[in-house]
Amino acid sequence: MNQAGTATPANHQPAADGAVLADADLAQAALIALDWGTTSLRAYLFDAHGRVLATRASTTGIMNLPRSAAEGGFDAAFDDACGAWLDRARGVPVIAAGMVGSAQGWREAPYVETPASADALVAGLVRVQTACGATLHIVPGVLQRGELPNVMRGEETQIFGALSADANGAPDTNAIDSNDRSLIGLPGTHAKWAVVQAGRIERFHTFMTGEVFAALREHTILGRTMVTPDRPDTEAFLRGVNIAREKGQAGMLATVFSTRTLGLTGELPSEAQPDYLSGLLIGHELAGLEALLAQQGSSLARQSLRLIGNDALCERYRLALAQFGCLRAEPVRHATERGLWRVAVAAGLVQPFTHAARAG
Amino acid sequence: MNQAGTATPANHQPAADGAVLADADLAQAALIALDWGTTSLRAYLFDAHGRVLATRASTTGIMNLPRSAAEGGFDAAFDDACGAWLDRARGVPVIAAGMVGSAQGWREAPYVETPASADALVAGLVRVQTACGATLHIVPGVLQRGELPNVMRGEETQIFGALSADANGAPDTNAIDSNDRSLIGLPGTHAKWAVVQAGRIERFHTFMTGEVFAALREHTILGRTMVTPDRPDTEAFLRGVNIAREKGQAGMLATVFSTRTLGLTGELPSEAQPDYLSGLLIGHELAGLEALLAQQGSSLARQSLRLIGNDALCERYRLALAQFGCLRAEPVRHATERGLWRVAVAAGLVQPFTHAARAG
Repeated sequence: MNQAGTATPANHQPAADGAVLADADLAQAALIALDWGTTSLRAYLFDAHGRVLATRASTTGIMNLPRSAAEGGFDAAFDDACGAWLDRARGVPVIAAGMVGSAQGWREAPYVETPASADALVAGLVRVQTACGATLHIVPGVLQRGELPNVMRGEETQIFGALSADANGAPDTNAIDSNDRSLIGLPGTHAKWAVVQAGRIERFHTFMTGEVFAALREHTILGRTMVTPDRPDTEAFLRGVNIAREKGQAGMLATVFSTRTLGLTGELPSEAQPDYLSGLLIGHELAGLEALLAQQGSSLARQSLRLIGNDALCERYRLALAQFGCLRAEPVRHATERGLWRVAVAAGLVQPFTHAARAG
Repeated sequence: MNQAGTATPANHQPAADGAVLADADLAQAALIALDWGTTSLRAYLFDAHGRVLATRASTTGIMNLPRSAAEGGFDAAFDDACGAWLDRARGVPVIAAGMVGSAQGWREAPYVETPASADALVAGLVRVQTACGATLHIVPGVLQRGELPNVMRGEETQIFGALSADANGAPDTNAIDSNDRSLIGLPGTHAKWAVVQAGRIERFHTFMTGEVFAALREHTILGRTMVTPDRPDTEAFLRGVNIAREKGQAGMLATVFSTRTLGLTGELPSEAQPDYLSGLLIGHELAGLEALLAQQGSSLARQSLRLIGNDALCERYRLALAQFGCLRAEPVRHATERGLWRVAVAAGLVQPFTHAARAG
């Protein structure tokens, strides 16, 4: 943790994806980090300053390997992602986070339980010897036990990446003080909301918002009258958010049918229906979060929170959060690679070149 | 309404489906009634006492016609369902309810708006001249306008069927007094909850519980670890209901992921997961209904309500309602045919043979 606190990546402008690196650049290589999920794999090459020298992206997620796991599919995907880097920069340490550590992944990295610190992630690293002779270090996910257990794999690394960004001392008036309780949202297929305190993930919730949206749109009557608009319809989106916020007491099951009935009554064009439904679901997610905060005497309006995710989705959430009175929701960029770097440093896989080190 | 009140079917034990009727029976034929939905068509042959002489069932719902509508698909399905009856009992009036009156149906029967009485349904009947010379009378659906509009087609007829059952004077201590406000639930793909007062449908809600369950099970990650059990797992079902009731404040989007995580932590076997998820969703539906009732100073525990639907599903809801303290939830049988009969009588399509008529 201490090491990580002083060694966050200073520069995240990567080289063009797949670009050929000069040997001079590869000579600076200090860490290869993989964000290896279900449907995609993204590789980052870092120098000792924590700068990203190059990135590579592929669709060889763990459910989409070039051949079966039994036939060496993980090794093949690994070689494809970073074999060329390793050929010319032998011995560079490699770390990975995400579903690659699940029971369906390359090797299972057992969950660390909440409250989870970066040190606990380090202690839980699982090693895989690859066919090409490298050692892959897999970051464990986090489990919260209880009547409604929760799990994450990959998001824990992004969260510590977001915390390291704050520790980096960026001039951000909303910066998270790592000793204060703060809320970090990770919108997506399975949206996560994590409460972080004193540098630990204290607890978190999973809202299946993205996957439910896709299932409703593709596989229920609601999709039948929908037409994808040329551009996002913010008005329809906010209408959905506010229906969920103001009229959503009976829950999502009771409001989603309005996507269809407002169409039947001529009050919602087909092109507005996808964004309206998206707004309804995100609105219900935030109303649910509001209810959880209320149990602790807080509210969204009193939160200063961070969002991790793709820009368009974070912007959607920012707009929706504003309807709940939460005007301080800042996207955190490069949380994934910052987190991977931070865990690698904390694990001693890489010795960061810092001002302190230089002075010494 | 007055007529309908004294003329409810006395006997709903139908002849075997598709059985050949004696001409003597067909001589008694007084009404043909069709429950014509999206995926099925069910036909009832009544005598003048409102007794069901015969039924026929087919899969020729409006989205599953034997040929396209333009090629006479509706006439073909109609002939298949009741052509043989009409051949031998010419001039018998025919009535139908359900999606056959939708914009995608045989002819659109514009919605009647809430508050909706049986008389309003009669006034809204739409007539179709069939190829075989019969006149089909289509019952309109009901529309409730508002920010969350609601529509029903078919359920309005079942609701009036349930009310006529009460008026029939059955010795039921929980009978609905038609002047009191009462709640009728119609579980299913799109579950409806209707508030009925003074013989009118005052307002209603649609919960997409059944269709959301199917979409989550078939088209999300939750289905991947599920195994269909040999018999319903009531314990898992009630566990889901109670999680939704007690821990569901953050809403359905926040609880459904537990179907998977309880499996990951070894706390919910694959065979228990379908019923657990079903319990979660029905529990969220009832929690939503509870929230709506609370806005009017009431609660499920204080309701004496009726359920219309298939027996197994009504039993599920009855068990779930008991968890909310509602111990008076009685299934209403034969609501569909009772309702069709009632509207036909109110419309003067059939002159019921009653004790009063016999005395006169």
